[in-house]
Amino acid sequence: MIIDVLLDGPRRFKDLSQAISGVSDRVLVERLKELEYEEIVTKDLDDTCDIRSGYRLTEKGRALKAVMNEVQNWADEWVCD
Amino acid sequence: MIIDVLLDGPRRFKDLSQAISGVSDRVLVERLKELEYEEIVTKDLDDTCDIRSGYRLTEKGRALKAVMNEVQNWADEWVCD
Repeated sequence: MIIDVLLDGPRRFKDLSQAISGVSDRVLVERLKELEYEEIVTKDLDDTCDIRSGYRLTEKGRALKAVMNEVQNWADEWVCD
Repeated sequence: MIIDVLLDGPRRFKDLSQAISGVSDRVLVERLKELEYEEIVTKDLDDTCDIRSGYRLTEKGRALKAVMNEVQNWADEWVCD
């Protein structure tokens, strides 16, 4: 879900937290740390980002788009809301 | 990893356990229960299966093949062994 949200662009922590409901901030921080460790997500934003602080996907993270698309296709077919 | 192994066909628990190294049997049982609950994996084997007891993917589980393929493509490009 974090990756899904960040595929739309960099996000402040509070916007991530809002977009991902049902997960406590503590757990969200933990997950973000894991994704940073795996170099999928980074806090290094530059001038091209609209926001000053927050999270964005690395190139490695953005490469997960094809995976997320297939997950979405699968969920559309097999998972009821 | 469980799904990946079961995409090759039904497996006895001990063969799953052997194929998935670094995970205790206790954790593996838990993961299998979660996948059973999500109806991705089942213990219902029939006469077409080579084995009498073990686990196989459901149709919902087999539909994850496209996802796993994309995960593999991503890992091949981005994850060092």
